[in-house]
Amino acid sequence: MAELAELRTRVAEARVARLATISADGRPHLVPLCFALDGEVIYSAVDEKPKRTKQLQRLENIRRRPKVCVLVDHYEEDWSRLWWVRVDGQARVLDEGPQRDRALALLLEKYEQYRIQPPTGPVIAVAIERWRTWSTTPEASDEGGS
Amino acid sequence: MAELAELRTRVAEARVARLATISADGRPHLVPLCFALDGEVIYSAVDEKPKRTKQLQRLENIRRRPKVCVLVDHYEEDWSRLWWVRVDGQARVLDEGPQRDRALALLLEKYEQYRIQPPTGPVIAVAIERWRTWSTTPEASDEGGS
Repeated sequence: MAELAELRTRVAEARVARLATISADGRPHLVPLCFALDGEVIYSAVDEKPKRTKQLQRLENIRRRPKVCVLVDHYEEDWSRLWWVRVDGQARVLDEGPQRDRALALLLEKYEQYRIQPPTGPVIAVAIERWRTWSTTPEASDEGGS
Repeated sequence: MAELAELRTRVAEARVARLATISADGRPHLVPLCFALDGEVIYSAVDEKPKRTKQLQRLENIRRRPKVCVLVDHYEEDWSRLWWVRVDGQARVLDEGPQRDRALALLLEKYEQYRIQPPTGPVIAVAIERWRTWSTTPEASDEGGS
């Protein structure tokens, strides 16, 4: 298994992740996610990229079923260099307050794009409960069965 | 909304997607996926990339709860060019038979890497029930609230 420090760096530096939640009808739901890693928490904002509404499915899902999964993966055509890191966590929606402010500061620090147009909506905070990793280099993996 | 033909091309040409299933404990579960699109079906193989077992979590999840979600997304630093395509579908595990053979032929056609080392495990077939798309160009999107 890759060292936790190395995993954390890979995740912290990734520009996009994918968030899975569960809908009211019991289906899994997926969106790509810009995010910032802060210790054992992943923050993501509902940003100004065009959306018709801020009543987003992902927020409804999290409020109803807070267990979520976030995946950061690396793909390239050389399949000897693939890896992913997956975290299971407990998500909350932060509509306001100091934790949301901190999250937005971290997101603006990581993404220049947010500095031009800061997010104004709620923030999702995922408290990480479990890290899993996989890599085509077997010794760098702790995951045999995903 | 982008034309369905254009969506299909984007999905067909993508080299990696992400599959969300639901675990026995009710949590969402995520893996990256090499895949081939065939009409209204997405095929993916359990391949020879190192895994300790073929008793994969994703297969167990699908056998128990076949409703899955697959996401293909495009990220780049120019946020005016982001898009994703999400499909909800009904998944099945094909252990053998002509549909599995066809899936493997399509996967070998798409991925040179599979021609070097063909997958030997089961195939996942996701019958697409719904397409959703989003893009930073609002007129190319049908999705207001993800």
